[in-house]
Amino acid sequence: MRRYITELIGTLFLVMGAILGGGVGASLALIIMVYAGGHISGAHYNPAITLAVLIRGKIGAKEVIPYWISQIAGAFIAALIVGYVFDVKSGGDCVIPDDGILKAFAAEFLGTFALAYVVLNAAFAKATSGNSYYGLAIGGTVLAMALVIGRYSGGAYNPAVAAGLSLQGSFCWTHIWLYIVAGLGGAALAAVIFRLNNPDDL
Amino acid sequence: MRRYITELIGTLFLVMGAILGGGVGASLALIIMVYAGGHISGAHYNPAITLAVLIRGKIGAKEVIPYWISQIAGAFIAALIVGYVFDVKSGGDCVIPDDGILKAFAAEFLGTFALAYVVLNAAFAKATSGNSYYGLAIGGTVLAMALVIGRYSGGAYNPAVAAGLSLQGSFCWTHIWLYIVAGLGGAALAAVIFRLNNPDDL
Amino acid sequence: MRRYITELIGTLFLVMGAILGGGVGASLALIIMVYAGGHISGAHYNPAITLAVLIRGKIGAKEVIPYWISQIAGAFIAALIVGYVFDVKSGGDCVIPDDGILKAFAAEFLGTFALAYVVLNAAFAKATSGNSYYGLAIGGTVLAMALVIGRYSGGAYNPAVAAGLSLQGSFCWTHIWLYIVAGLGGAALAAVIFRLNNPDDL
Amino acid sequence: MRRYITELIGTLFLVMGAILGGGVGASLALIIMVYAGGHISGAHYNPAITLAVLIRGKIGAKEVIPYWISQIAGAFIAALIVGYVFDVKSGGDCVIPDDGILKAFAAEFLGTFALAYVVLNAAFAKATSGNSYYGLAIGGTVLAMALVIGRYSGGAYNPAVAAGLSLQGSFCWTHIWLYIVAGLGGAALAAVIFRLNNPDDL
Repeated sequence: MRRYITELIGTLFLVMGAILGGGVGASLALIIMVYAGGHISGAHYNPAITLAVLIRGKIGAKEVIPYWISQIAGAFIAALIVGYVFDVKSGGDCVIPDDGILKAFAAEFLGTFALAYVVLNAAFAKATSGNSYYGLAIGGTVLAMALVIGRYSGGAYNPAVAAGLSLQGSFCWTHIWLYIVAGLGGAALAAVIFRLNNPDDL
Repeated sequence: MRRYITELIGTLFLVMGAILGGGVGASLALIIMVYAGGHISGAHYNPAITLAVLIRGKIGAKEVIPYWISQIAGAFIAALIVGYVFDVKSGGDCVIPDDGILKAFAAEFLGTFALAYVVLNAAFAKATSGNSYYGLAIGGTVLAMALVIGRYSGGAYNPAVAAGLSLQGSFCWTHIWLYIVAGLGGAALAAVIFRLNNPDDL
Repeated sequence: MRRYITELIGTLFLVMGAILGGGVGASLALIIMVYAGGHISGAHYNPAITLAVLIRGKIGAKEVIPYWISQIAGAFIAALIVGYVFDVKSGGDCVIPDDGILKAFAAEFLGTFALAYVVLNAAFAKATSGNSYYGLAIGGTVLAMALVIGRYSGGAYNPAVAAGLSLQGSFCWTHIWLYIVAGLGGAALAAVIFRLNNPDDL
Repeated sequence: MRRYITELIGTLFLVMGAILGGGVGASLALIIMVYAGGHISGAHYNPAITLAVLIRGKIGAKEVIPYWISQIAGAFIAALIVGYVFDVKSGGDCVIPDDGILKAFAAEFLGTFALAYVVLNAAFAKATSGNSYYGLAIGGTVLAMALVIGRYSGGAYNPAVAAGLSLQGSFCWTHIWLYIVAGLGGAALAAVIFRLNNPDDL
């Protein structure tokens, strides 16, 4: 239970950071919440990362759904706090233009690939265990990807963040499939490469 | 005694950073002072954190008042240095507008909750002891909260900082209750959740 | 083989960061990729660093060419992704003005010297082994040099990055010799100084 | 000898960073050079820090002068590179206005106090030995002080940096006494407080 509370709190602050502070706010929130919760839940805060950690073999299949539910619940609570407590409402225009779907898909795929690749190597590899940089590397990846390719997709790299932003109105629900498919796909590819590159860790 | 000198020096630079350097100045000052003083006093520099550390069980009840006095003394000395040595005087307008009290309360509660949550997990948990990231995580939380929700309350997340800024004139004394109540409340909630989530640490 | 895949992936994201995110994008990409791949390949991502690591004695001469090929392949794939997937085309004007060749050479020499000096001392020295700061120090060097002297040469400090940017059009192929000669020269000097300063490491 | 080469190289890049990159450039250069040279020379790069380390008891009195000479030599070489290779010449106007001497003195005293306080506690204390954050804390102090009180004195916190900037023309030689007296004074006070606060380290 304490792992699910940790995932909910972490994703809540991550989504508040993303809506009210953009790429910098999201990456700072992710850094602090990874360092605060990593020792309890592994600090995924992201359904795509939970999938990558499953493929890598560090959580069981039965835990995936409760992790996902906790993450989405945190994202939705954040959207409600932002919308109803702080009165910040967005809505209407989609972040992704009609002729930008391919670029957005590529950007989300590459960004979530990079995020899962860094998470697995910095936080779930034997050779790097006990390090102090994992939170900085993970949050830094969101910042790097937001800066470098965030313009093409809004820079979620996280289906729960995309859902929270869609509920709050910063993203459109019509594009949620893209964040889910590209995000899970990029994370799964990173997990496969991790397994090939770290055979002694399996 | 050396713990109280450390708390005074740390809070002094934190409040100088907040008045003259805003959220970035405060968070940088906090990072460096946490790394400089953590091994001596625990580097609270914040009455709300001292309360959270008390609830978590890492300091005794008798130490709370001297910690608080050291922190407030440091904050007041900083306000005097800024006002009389550097001649930076503010005053008059309150940071929080009349119709923004609820948002300001929510922002201070959430921000101090996040700060205490990160402090307890990164600096006072068995599973993370000996890490090198605690100062970065703690200062990073102030930066994250200042960026994400600082606009609603001025972003103190610390009753001593609020007192220092009120003395110097950047904050109004009429709102000091809000920084105290929301700050202590948010920190206390974080400490309760820490106890639930880390049962083996008690 | 897994080392070459790691070098290719890391250099790919480094060059994407450099083209689409400038000095900040490149340095953030380098930080995260050093932390992700350091335990597999040593995380050079740079032919000049591979040369410095060879002189320092941490890789064999036979490995240099495959490292270089992997790095250049990653850089070229990044240039193609940026140019054809994200449609970002540059071209025409050279970064280095005709009367600025000497300054550009000095800047690339100093910048790559600093980078190799930091890499060798932070990531390949006995006295600092097991630290958690190496990625931050290495990526921070690219950021520092880009900010301080990047204006004179475009700030590559890396022949593979220069090749990728030349293919994509941000740099001119006519200046590629400068990035190669100054980069390899600066890195070689840093390796010689490392050997003098760390006699017990050899 | 290798310690003096290390001090010269580190101070050279620090002063180049300060002249061409301001407070951000100086602090980034300091972070990377502290991580690169700390294990060889202790990475002072600053005559005031060398004094503080002497008072703290970590170097011998005979080493002070060679350290100071190496630091000033590095600063002067940096000034010459900036002035004659990169053709960046300043000169004429002093950073400190005539009626701002007291504020400048207070700022340099406070800034160098903070720097020496952080250096001693993060890099020369038993309780924090082996940490990975010392470079970040030390460079972060220069950034914090530059942001918070740099406007009053130009933000050297380092007599060698002040000498290098005076030679290059960004500072006036008529104020060099201030950087020396306030810098050595602030650092000495920090060393005395360190000795009081860390009695078991002596």
